[in-house]
Amino acid sequence: MSNKIYFTPGPTQLFYTFEEHFKRALALDIISISHRSSTFIKIVEETTEALKELLELPAGYDIYYLNSANEVWDRIIQNLVDESSHHFANGAFSKKFYDFALAHHKSSSVTEVEDGAIFSDWNIPEKAELIGITKNETSIGFTTTEKELANFREENPDKLIALDIVSAAPSLPIDFSKIDTAYFSVQKAFGLPPGLGVWIVNEKCHEVAQKRATKTSLGSYRSLPNLKKFGDKHQTPETPNMLAIYLLGKIANDMIQVGLKKLRNDTIYKATILNQAIESHESLNHFVASKEHRSKTTIVADAKDPSKILSFFEKKGIILGSGYGIHKKNHIRIANFPTHSKESVEMLCDLLKDIE
Amino acid sequence: MSNKIYFTPGPTQLFYTFEEHFKRALALDIISISHRSSTFIKIVEETTEALKELLELPAGYDIYYLNSANEVWDRIIQNLVDESSHHFANGAFSKKFYDFALAHHKSSSVTEVEDGAIFSDWNIPEKAELIGITKNETSIGFTTTEKELANFREENPDKLIALDIVSAAPSLPIDFSKIDTAYFSVQKAFGLPPGLGVWIVNEKCHEVAQKRATKTSLGSYRSLPNLKKFGDKHQTPETPNMLAIYLLGKIANDMIQVGLKKLRNDTIYKATILNQAIESHESLNHFVASKEHRSKTTIVADAKDPSKILSFFEKKGIILGSGYGIHKKNHIRIANFPTHSKESVEMLCDLLKDIE
Repeated sequence: MSNKIYFTPGPTQLFYTFEEHFKRALALDIISISHRSSTFIKIVEETTEALKELLELPAGYDIYYLNSANEVWDRIIQNLVDESSHHFANGAFSKKFYDFALAHHKSSSVTEVEDGAIFSDWNIPEKAELIGITKNETSIGFTTTEKELANFREENPDKLIALDIVSAAPSLPIDFSKIDTAYFSVQKAFGLPPGLGVWIVNEKCHEVAQKRATKTSLGSYRSLPNLKKFGDKHQTPETPNMLAIYLLGKIANDMIQVGLKKLRNDTIYKATILNQAIESHESLNHFVASKEHRSKTTIVADAKDPSKILSFFEKKGIILGSGYGIHKKNHIRIANFPTHSKESVEMLCDLLKDIE
Repeated sequence: MSNKIYFTPGPTQLFYTFEEHFKRALALDIISISHRSSTFIKIVEETTEALKELLELPAGYDIYYLNSANEVWDRIIQNLVDESSHHFANGAFSKKFYDFALAHHKSSSVTEVEDGAIFSDWNIPEKAELIGITKNETSIGFTTTEKELANFREENPDKLIALDIVSAAPSLPIDFSKIDTAYFSVQKAFGLPPGLGVWIVNEKCHEVAQKRATKTSLGSYRSLPNLKKFGDKHQTPETPNMLAIYLLGKIANDMIQVGLKKLRNDTIYKATILNQAIESHESLNHFVASKEHRSKTTIVADAKDPSKILSFFEKKGIILGSGYGIHKKNHIRIANFPTHSKESVEMLCDLLKDIE
C-alpha cells in the first residue's frame, strides 16, 4: 500500500490486516482450489459464522454472498416483490433502490424528502409488500435511529422490511429482529476491495420467495430458493469471489478479537471529535440538521470550498471523500470505519484547524 | 503461492505475473480509489482495449464486466430473450444455460445428445430468438469447430448466436463476426481469481434489448441499455470488482507481449503431447471420440481409477482436475492454459508414464 490514508466512504482504506491475510490466502492457494472442495466449503462456513457473531444476528437469519449492494437491490425486487414496494428516500442511495423497483416495472411508491431531511410522514400504502429503508445513507451521512426502526416493525408487522446497512455494519448496532432482510458491500466498514455484497434474509423472506416461485420466475441462479439450496451446504450456486469470502471471514474474526464493544466505542469517540472539529470550524457546518440522525460512520459537512479542503489534505497524503452526486461542489465526506485509527482521526481533526 | 501446480480447469494456477501485478495494484491504491475517478476510468478503458486486441474483436462489439459466466447466462436470458431460446447441450455447462432459460420461464428448447457426443441434427425451431452454443465444454473437454460455427451463422442469419467461450478465450481462435454475443470468466485461461465475468455483445444485441425495453423490464442495473450507458464512458453501473478489472487488463497485455501466435502454438504443442501421453497410456482413453472435437484447453480422459492418478500427482504437488459431476468417478481433466508452461506439461506427461 502507498503511504496515503483514505478517509473516503468506500472504496476506502484497506483494513489494516488485509495484506497479511491476502499473503496467507496466496500461500494456502485459496485462489486456485475448487469452490466445491471441502477446504472452500469450510471457509464459507467460517465466514458465515464469524459474520453472524460479529453482527449479533439472531437465529433464523441466513447469509448469502452476492457481488454488490446494487445486486442485492436487484435480487430483492426480483425475489420478494410481486407488485409493489415502498421506499423512504432522502439521499441518492435510498432513491436508487426505488429506481431499481421501477426498472423492474413494479408499481412501487416512495416517500421522498429533501436530501438529509427527517421523515415526518411514516405512512405506507397498504399495497406495499416490502419497505425499503436505509440505516446509513452514505451519500449524505444520515442515520435512521433504532427507535424509528422499532416503530416500523410495530406498525408494519406483516410487510417485509429491507434495511440497507451499507457503511453501517458492523460499526452501528442494529436490531435484526426488527427487520426481515439487510445487505451491505464489503468496501465500506470492512475495508475490503469491492466485488462482494452480503445479503441477509430471514425465514419470512424464504416463505415469500417459495410462494412466489409457484407462480412466477424469480430469476435463475440467484433465486432465493437456489441460494438457500446451495447456502444450506455452505456453497454458492456459481464460482464466487472466493478470495473476498475468505478475507471477509478473516477480517470479521479480527474485529471479533478487537471486541465489538471497543470497535463501537471507538466509532463513537472518533465521530465525536470529528463532529467537534466541524462545529468549531468557521467554514464547515453539519449537513444533516437533526443531531440524532447524523451518521457516525460517514461524517458529512457543508463546506464553502470543498476542493480547497480536499487538495489541502491530499498534499499531506490524506484522501477525504468529496460530496456525492449533486453535492459534489458543497460537501466533504469523511469515513469513520474500523480501519481508521483514533490517532489518524485525531491528526485529521488537528489538520482541519489549519485550513479556513 | 505454494509450490503446487494446479492443472485444474478453473479455478486454476494463477497466471505467472499475477503476484507482481497485485503488488503493483496495492502500491497504486487501486483498491482504495473511487470507481468514478479518472484513474479507474482509464483502467477500465485500458483493460477493454487490451481484451479487444487480444481477442481480435472486430469493430462493433462492446465489452461489459459482470461477475461470473453464470451471471452472463442470467443476463442474456433477461435482456435478449422474449419467449424462447434454443440450446445445444452435450455436457453439464451447455445444459445449465438451457436450465437458466427454463428458470426464467421461457419456452426454450434443447438439442441434447450424450455427453461428449457430436451433434448431427443442427435444426433450430423457428420460434427461437437466440441460440446457445458452447465453444469449449469445460465439463467434458468438447470443442465446437470453427466450421460448425460458421455454418450456424450462415443458416441462422437473423437469430442471435450466443457463444460460451469460458476456458476457450484467448487460447482458441474464435471468429467473432460469426456470433452476436460471447462470454467467459477469468478463473480459466486468464489465470485470475474468480469473481469477474466478461460479456461481449454486438450492435444487434443492443438493438434487440432496446426494442424489448419499450415493452418489458430487462432488470435494473444490469440491463443492456444501462450497461451501455455506463460502458460508453468506461464505467460500470455499480462499484465493480475493481482489482479484477485491473489485473485482467495487465494479464491481457502480458499475453499480447508474449504474442497471440506463440500463445496459441504453445497451446497446440502442449495439447499434442498431452494427447499422445493419453494415447500411449494403458488405462487412459480420450473421452471425446471425435478427434476434431477434442478440446485443446481442457484435456479429458476416461480413467480406470481417477482417484489413484489424482493422488499420485497430488503427492508430487501437481493438482489435476477430477471429472465433473456425473463423471467424477470416471474422468480426469487436465487444464492447458497459457499459465501452464511447456516444461510443466512435459513433466506431467513424463510422470503419467509412471502410473498404471
